[in-house]
Amino acid sequence: MMSGKPIKIVGLGKYLPQEVSSADLEQKHGLPQGWSEKYSGVKSRHHITFESIGYMGAKAIEQALEKCQMELNDIDLLISASAGFDYPLPSQSSIIKSELKDGMTVNIPALDVDSSCLSFVSAFEIASSLLDGKKYKNIVIVSSEIASTGLNPNNWETLTLFGDGAVAAILQFDSNTDSAYLKSTMQTYSEGVYDSTFKGGGMKLFFKDNPYDPEIHSFAMNGRKLLRLAKTHLPDFIDAFFEDIPIKMEETNAIIPHQASKLGVSILSSLYKVKENQVLGNLATYGNCIAASIPLVLHDAVESGAIKRGDICFIIGTAAGFSIGGLLLKF
Amino acid sequence: MMSGKPIKIVGLGKYLPQEVSSADLEQKHGLPQGWSEKYSGVKSRHHITFESIGYMGAKAIEQALEKCQMELNDIDLLISASAGFDYPLPSQSSIIKSELKDGMTVNIPALDVDSSCLSFVSAFEIASSLLDGKKYKNIVIVSSEIASTGLNPNNWETLTLFGDGAVAAILQFDSNTDSAYLKSTMQTYSEGVYDSTFKGGGMKLFFKDNPYDPEIHSFAMNGRKLLRLAKTHLPDFIDAFFEDIPIKMEETNAIIPHQASKLGVSILSSLYKVKENQVLGNLATYGNCIAASIPLVLHDAVESGAIKRGDICFIIGTAAGFSIGGLLLKF
Repeated sequence: MMSGKPIKIVGLGKYLPQEVSSADLEQKHGLPQGWSEKYSGVKSRHHITFESIGYMGAKAIEQALEKCQMELNDIDLLISASAGFDYPLPSQSSIIKSELKDGMTVNIPALDVDSSCLSFVSAFEIASSLLDGKKYKNIVIVSSEIASTGLNPNNWETLTLFGDGAVAAILQFDSNTDSAYLKSTMQTYSEGVYDSTFKGGGMKLFFKDNPYDPEIHSFAMNGRKLLRLAKTHLPDFIDAFFEDIPIKMEETNAIIPHQASKLGVSILSSLYKVKENQVLGNLATYGNCIAASIPLVLHDAVESGAIKRGDICFIIGTAAGFSIGGLLLKF
Repeated sequence: MMSGKPIKIVGLGKYLPQEVSSADLEQKHGLPQGWSEKYSGVKSRHHITFESIGYMGAKAIEQALEKCQMELNDIDLLISASAGFDYPLPSQSSIIKSELKDGMTVNIPALDVDSSCLSFVSAFEIASSLLDGKKYKNIVIVSSEIASTGLNPNNWETLTLFGDGAVAAILQFDSNTDSAYLKSTMQTYSEGVYDSTFKGGGMKLFFKDNPYDPEIHSFAMNGRKLLRLAKTHLPDFIDAFFEDIPIKMEETNAIIPHQASKLGVSILSSLYKVKENQVLGNLATYGNCIAASIPLVLHDAVESGAIKRGDICFIIGTAAGFSIGGLLLKF
């Protein structure tokens, strides 16, 4: 089933904190020179110095608004689509909104959508569903993530892999546009529920009885199992996605896989005949930015001209939980 | 604008942990006998002993499925609509799904929606929008909350006010139903962004540099400011909600306010001429169960017959952030 609803991305904005080269990171933590690029595929990434998730998210939205000459008042809903958060309460979206220019006086609604690394994909589907040109004319989705604070220096795999950053996308219902939301699906395979975790904090390992310990207060990934899960389920997922629509993955103009890991992004080209320039990515320069990874690729591809108006884009990713999600859109 | 989309709540289920009387709570923490009921309006509430958010959420869903004789396989999307969480990662919905009967083998998608105490209201609107009888025929929303773990024993106001519990509601698109999603709106007033918080944990006051301290690792409410915000904005919000629809609040069969606090639930009847039996609540026996409060009232009112098929129900609440949300439905 294909939707074809006239949804147009009218503005994109991003915020990146300070760049950190792999050489500097390796030196700081006593890793062999070259380890990061060799094993994680990451040459550099961005890590916060003073920034918060709220700050970066607000900056990304402000840039997106500026690009399409809109004001916050033109937005009907703010969706924060991220796994991380500044505080457990209030919601991240309400924090981001409060840090925006005009955020304290414009009373648009704000809510969070979280499917970890697929949060942007889930929020895109939800926004596309809500947008009707009446109650909702414009919705901003923002994915702002700080991974660096929660990295375990003893776990080289995650230490070198993750980066921080924020992206915002303004989606508009426009009955005259040729742009469209075409399709999205997600599946959650609970066999992998705890293969990607941050266990400390929350109600189960509560702060009181669980003082700081990098083994629980850090991202932890069962990389081998995650790869196996992706390899097992991705082909069926993609086949089912394209089965009942008149487009083939190979015919799309751009494929944006979540920048999960070096091996993770290579799965697609190992399984399918995709053209060299068809698959876009930024793992080498940004690392895995959790939910911000997918929209960061989209942002930069639009800015560089790699994705043009009318291009068919297929977004495909995995997420903690363990989920696979796909989104097809005509930019 | 009124929707009238044929959305029917076909199943409701709940899970409550052990009941804790105010007398017992007061004795345990050295409060004067009767303090809780007098100041918080809470006679008893439920607190977990062994339960997790995931466990309670799964039990509530299983009961809801049973009530309408459905299997997990009949559900097209699981939305966890809560402020709290067992672990920061993975998403709460994926944890709940993994704890469900058949959850490990049925690969339906799972995602979180969070607008703190209004999460159920936000998820209801999102589910109503997504439900189309094709891709989405049935969506389950579950609000599972544990407040007791994060209570500061030195803060009597929150200590006596909050309770734990979970509720699930199965929403179905049914073109033959008389039930309907009618309208919902939300506004986020950022002037109150930090008047209801849980600040410790998360990326801003990270675990490493912020060891357990009940002042930051607990719910904190600026009760007086929240009341002032509600009193300032609620009348305009409600007037605007009913302005362009052919229903008046006073004509609805049932009004369900979020069970925020004793004074919070009294605002409505102080501002509007509502009939005595029209406003439903459970603060005295459940306390404030965060996002689970609203659906718990709905659940019990349907079970007791206070809400019947065809009844027009108006749900209205406030949330950390600070937000006000309203939802009108024909049960």
